[in-house]
Amino acid sequence: MRNLKLVVEYDGTDWCGFQRQPRLPTIQGVLEEQLARLLGEPVRVIGASRTDAGVHALGQVVNFHTASPLPVERVPLALNRLLPPSVVVKAAAEVPAGFHARRSARRKRYHYTTLHQEAPSALVGRFCLVRGGPLDLAAMGQGLRHLEGRHDFSAFQAAGSSARQPVREVHAARVRRAGPFVVMVLEADGFLYQMARIMAELALQIGAGVPPEAARQVLEGRQRVGTAAPPQGLCLVKVTY
Amino acid sequence: MRNLKLVVEYDGTDWCGFQRQPRLPTIQGVLEEQLARLLGEPVRVIGASRTDAGVHALGQVVNFHTASPLPVERVPLALNRLLPPSVVVKAAAEVPAGFHARRSARRKRYHYTTLHQEAPSALVGRFCLVRGGPLDLAAMGQGLRHLEGRHDFSAFQAAGSSARQPVREVHAARVRRAGPFVVMVLEADGFLYQMARIMAELALQIGAGVPPEAARQVLEGRQRVGTAAPPQGLCLVKVTY
Repeated sequence: MRNLKLVVEYDGTDWCGFQRQPRLPTIQGVLEEQLARLLGEPVRVIGASRTDAGVHALGQVVNFHTASPLPVERVPLALNRLLPPSVVVKAAAEVPAGFHARRSARRKRYHYTTLHQEAPSALVGRFCLVRGGPLDLAAMGQGLRHLEGRHDFSAFQAAGSSARQPVREVHAARVRRAGPFVVMVLEADGFLYQMARIMAELALQIGAGVPPEAARQVLEGRQRVGTAAPPQGLCLVKVTY
Repeated sequence: MRNLKLVVEYDGTDWCGFQRQPRLPTIQGVLEEQLARLLGEPVRVIGASRTDAGVHALGQVVNFHTASPLPVERVPLALNRLLPPSVVVKAAAEVPAGFHARRSARRKRYHYTTLHQEAPSALVGRFCLVRGGPLDLAAMGQGLRHLEGRHDFSAFQAAGSSARQPVREVHAARVRRAGPFVVMVLEADGFLYQMARIMAELALQIGAGVPPEAARQVLEGRQRVGTAAPPQGLCLVKVTY
């Protein structure tokens, strides 16, 4: 059996998240279905990240084992013909038998994008959080800096998490302007359930006036607090192996 | 009767263009329907530009006459509650009785956006043309420059145009990079039917190897040539009065 790795981009708006669920449209589900059609055998896909419903990806990574002799360089084009336009395979490569998209991942990078205006946006509302009010980027940056490093992120974990231990190393938690948008870059060796969105929401609260020190206090309190920012602002940008 | 002007943003992907058509979802149709609901009287909307199916707008302008006393500053919020998320009213103002969104327009600016890569894009494929192959931006710029100024644009008019005369003044026809995208900025006192998309397609052909002088030859030939670039790359950015 060969082990193939794919880099996948998707618009998560109309999908019930990555993970396969009976009778619901999911990224894993559609990939397995169309791979099975392409390769003529059942396929089980492993994803680097189980992104939530509505979350997007520019660089989700998956792998699967197959007995098919189909040349790997033909997989993207062939699969993209079968997939709906909101899911695209950007690259494919044969990897060693031991490669596991989730367990082998060393780092994941997410972007959380917001557009700060009162009116909703017809054009980009699918891909960012549109929210009005003041936004202090310097304060957001200060708050996010408290989250960088190796910490117990229990306070940044939603109920329903399957993680065995809550310590993660956050390599980057920063914010910058990109044209009319504000983009938070969140990179870690791993994220607990909804951790990226809970970090983003806290940073937005800090941007709106909560003192930046709140981020440190929340972290040290280890008590789950606050809510998660809405999914449409989040995008899995890159997985590093 | 008061005359109200709205600035409207829309994602044209799922709409059959601006102009009202029986039993088809159109921007004019949905605006008239929801304005009638809001104001309690039939409303006839005039649009600055009859954008084609799939074409987007960041700054479409419309006007309508109404006997309703609803304060104009309340119109955007009230109307956005009724409209689907892909159509948003960004601003509203009361204008003189003689203001006509189409006839009073002095300039219109369109952007035509492309992403040059072989693979389709799941995330931005709604909002740009994704096309592979080489792209010579300098040549595109040279070609587009031939189209600037006051010319007979008969060669850049699709069948079905209702324009009485084909002379238009193009104030700007330029191309620039914007992050991973290539954006053509097309500004004129008016555009013939599909003129912006025919200009864009010719520029793309020049970018792919057709000599820039072809733009001048096509213009002078006054014979309709070539095809129109696909609608999803086009966006009505601004109308000037």
